[in-house]
Amino acid sequence: MSPYRGSVPLTEDWRHFRLERADGVATVTLDRPDKLNALTFEAYADLRDLLAELPQRGDTRVLVLRGEGRAFCSGGDVNEIIGETLKMGSRELLEFTRMTGEVIRAMRECPIPIIVALHGMAAGAGSVIALAADFRVATPAARFAFLFTKVGLSGADMGAAYLLPRLVGLGHATRLLMLGDTIGAEEAERIGLISSLVEDLDGAVGELAARLASGPAQAYAQTKSLLTREQDMSLSGALELDAMTQALLMNGQDYAEFHAAFNAGRQPRWQGR
Amino acid sequence: MSPYRGSVPLTEDWRHFRLERADGVATVTLDRPDKLNALTFEAYADLRDLLAELPQRGDTRVLVLRGEGRAFCSGGDVNEIIGETLKMGSRELLEFTRMTGEVIRAMRECPIPIIVALHGMAAGAGSVIALAADFRVATPAARFAFLFTKVGLSGADMGAAYLLPRLVGLGHATRLLMLGDTIGAEEAERIGLISSLVEDLDGAVGELAARLASGPAQAYAQTKSLLTREQDMSLSGALELDAMTQALLMNGQDYAEFHAAFNAGRQPRWQGR
Amino acid sequence: MSPYRGSVPLTEDWRHFRLERADGVATVTLDRPDKLNALTFEAYADLRDLLAELPQRGDTRVLVLRGEGRAFCSGGDVNEIIGETLKMGSRELLEFTRMTGEVIRAMRECPIPIIVALHGMAAGAGSVIALAADFRVATPAARFAFLFTKVGLSGADMGAAYLLPRLVGLGHATRLLMLGDTIGAEEAERIGLISSLVEDLDGAVGELAARLASGPAQAYAQTKSLLTREQDMSLSGALELDAMTQALLMNGQDYAEFHAAFNAGRQPRWQGR
Repeated sequence: MSPYRGSVPLTEDWRHFRLERADGVATVTLDRPDKLNALTFEAYADLRDLLAELPQRGDTRVLVLRGEGRAFCSGGDVNEIIGETLKMGSRELLEFTRMTGEVIRAMRECPIPIIVALHGMAAGAGSVIALAADFRVATPAARFAFLFTKVGLSGADMGAAYLLPRLVGLGHATRLLMLGDTIGAEEAERIGLISSLVEDLDGAVGELAARLASGPAQAYAQTKSLLTREQDMSLSGALELDAMTQALLMNGQDYAEFHAAFNAGRQPRWQGR
Repeated sequence: MSPYRGSVPLTEDWRHFRLERADGVATVTLDRPDKLNALTFEAYADLRDLLAELPQRGDTRVLVLRGEGRAFCSGGDVNEIIGETLKMGSRELLEFTRMTGEVIRAMRECPIPIIVALHGMAAGAGSVIALAADFRVATPAARFAFLFTKVGLSGADMGAAYLLPRLVGLGHATRLLMLGDTIGAEEAERIGLISSLVEDLDGAVGELAARLASGPAQAYAQTKSLLTREQDMSLSGALELDAMTQALLMNGQDYAEFHAAFNAGRQPRWQGR
Repeated sequence: MSPYRGSVPLTEDWRHFRLERADGVATVTLDRPDKLNALTFEAYADLRDLLAELPQRGDTRVLVLRGEGRAFCSGGDVNEIIGETLKMGSRELLEFTRMTGEVIRAMRECPIPIIVALHGMAAGAGSVIALAADFRVATPAARFAFLFTKVGLSGADMGAAYLLPRLVGLGHATRLLMLGDTIGAEEAERIGLISSLVEDLDGAVGELAARLASGPAQAYAQTKSLLTREQDMSLSGALELDAMTQALLMNGQDYAEFHAAFNAGRQPRWQGR
C-alpha cells in the first residue's frame, strides 16, 4: 500500500467503532458491548476502509484491535446481518461476502503490524479477524469459535481455510472449522493460535504496541509483507524476493544506524526508513 | 464429485473389506486381522472406487474407516504387493503407484467427512490413509509408522510429503518420513497428528459420526472441499472462493433454518442443502 | 544435483571452515570461536560451493554442520559484513544477498541429508542455516535468534519467511521474525523447531549420522527432494510425483534387497541405489 494520495479525502469520523490515536498507535475498539460487539455491514466497510487509509496517513506505526465489554467480537450480527442476507439475491450476497474477505486481505496486506487484544469470545468473523492479525495477545479468558457450520455456512469463511491450517496445521484446522466448537485459551496456545498468553492484557498490549511503534518500521513492514506473500510463493521465488528486499533495506538509514549505534555501544534511534 | 450418474451401475458387493451402512454412516472395516489388515492390489482398487461411488449414492453422510483385530492397517502386504511389484516393469509399477495416490486423492476430494478409528498400528500406506482422513480419533495404543525408507522406498508415498508437513510442520515431517520410525499416540497428539485422543474408541467415533451425519451436510462438504483446495491457492484466490461459497450457501435452506431456529429458541433441523 | 562433472576441478582446500570426512560423513565446523563463528563473505561462498560439490564426489552420505566454541553461529559479522555492505551500491548488495539465499537453496536441494548440531546460539544467518537443515539436534543450551529486524533489516532473510512458517506455523513465525527475540531450546522444541533435544550432542549426532550413512541413500535423497518440492506443489502434482518416484525406486536394488532380507529374516544390506 503506497502512501501516495490524490483527491480522495481522509476519513475523520469513523462511526462504526471507536478510534483513538496516541504515540503512533491507532486503537480500534469495537463498541457494541450489549451485542458482544457483533459486526454490522457498516462496521465491515469501516474496517476495510480504515485499513486502506491508515498506511497513507503517515502517523500510525501500529494498529490495535480490541472489544468493549465481555467479548472481543461475536461475529456477524444474527439479525442485522444474517436476517438481512436472507432477503438478498446472488449479486447482493456476493457484494457482502466479498467485503468481508476484503477486510482480511487488507489486514494481511496492511504494512502496519496489527495486534488483537483478546479477553473473551472471538466468534465467527471475530475469530477470523483475530486469525488475520499479526499478534494475538490473549488472557486465559479468551475463547475462539469458528462457528460457521453451526449457522449452516462453510467453515471456510473470510480465508479461514487458508489461514488457520497455516497457523495450527491442517488436522486441528479441520476439526475447528468442520465442527465449529469453542476452544479456550489454553488449547489455542498449545496449537499455535495465540502469540502470547498474559494476565495483564492492557499492559502486555501496550508494551508490545510501544515497542513496535518505536522500532524500525520499514523492517517490520517488509517482514510482514514477505511473511504474507511467501505463503503463496516457491522457495526459489521467496529467496529472490528476500535478496531484493535486503539489498533495498541495506541502502536504508536504519541499517546504517544499527551499525553506528553498535560500534558506539548505544541503542539505535530508528527512523523507519 | 457430482452425484449425477448415467449407465454405470453401483457396486453392491465390496469383496476386499467389510462395508456396513446405518443412519447415514458407512463403515469400512479392513478385515484381514491375521495380516494386520495389510492391503492388496484389490483392496486399494476397492477403496478408490468406493470413495468415488459413495457421494453419488445419496445415502451416506459420513465414512468411518477402521481395522479388525490388533492393527488399523499395516500397509501394503510384503509378499502380495512388494513381492509382486519386484516382477513388474515400469508401466505396471506406475499403474500400481498411481492407484495408491488415487485413493488419497479420492479421500481428500470426497465431499463426505471421513473419520479414521485408530486403536493400534497404522503403518506405511495405512499411516498415509490415516493422514488423509478428516478426523483421526485414536486411543493411547495407536501408533504411526511412515516406514517407507525402511523398505528402500521414498518417504514421499501417496502424498505423505505433501500432507504430513501441512499437519505437523516440515521439521517433524522430515524426521518421520526420512527415518520411518514408529511414534506413539502421545507424540502424535503433541505434534498435531491426532484429532482426538480417547479411551472409548467406539463411543467417541460413534458420537462424532452421528453428529456429522445429522449436521448441515453441504456446509461440511464445502468446508472440507475448501480446506483441501486452499492448501494449493493464494490468499487472494482463497478469499474469492470463500466469498462465492458463502454467497451460494446463504441462498440455501440450512442457513435460513438456522435463523428461524435461533429466533424461535429451538435447535435447527438441518436438511443438508 | 546430478553427479556428472566435466572440466571443473573439485576443491581440495576449504579455507573458511574446517572439513573432515569419515565413513561417509562430512563434517563442517565453523571455526572462528572468538567471533562466535560469525560468517564472512568467503564463508558464505564456501558453504554454497561445498554444497554443490558434495553430491558430485560420491563419497559423502551425510553432512553435519557444527560450530567450534560457545556458539553454533552468530550470523553475518557486524564489521566484516555489515560494515562492508554499508559501502556498497545496489548491484553489489544484491550480489551479496543473492549469495546468502544460494546457500539455503543449496541446502534444500542437496540430496544428502544435513544435520545441524546446536549447542549454543544460532543467530541471524546462523538461525536460518539451522532452519534449512533436515535435522536440528540440540542440547538444552541451544538458542535461536532470528534477529534481522534488530539490525534494521527484514525478518524475511534467506528464506526465513518461507521456511519458518512451514515448520512452526505462521503465528509463531510472525512473532519470531518481527521481534527478533532469542528463544531457548525448550520453546524451540515445543513449537517444532528442534528435531531432537538431547544431552549428549556428539553422541546423538554421531549416531544419527551413522544411521543415515549406512541407510538406503537413494530413498533418503528422494524423500528429502520431495519434501522440499512438494511444499510448492498442488496435491495432484505431488501425488503424481510420488507415483513416478516410487515406480522408479521399485526398480532399484534396495527395494529388492529389503524383500530378500525380510524373507530371510536378516537385516537389509543397503546399496543406496
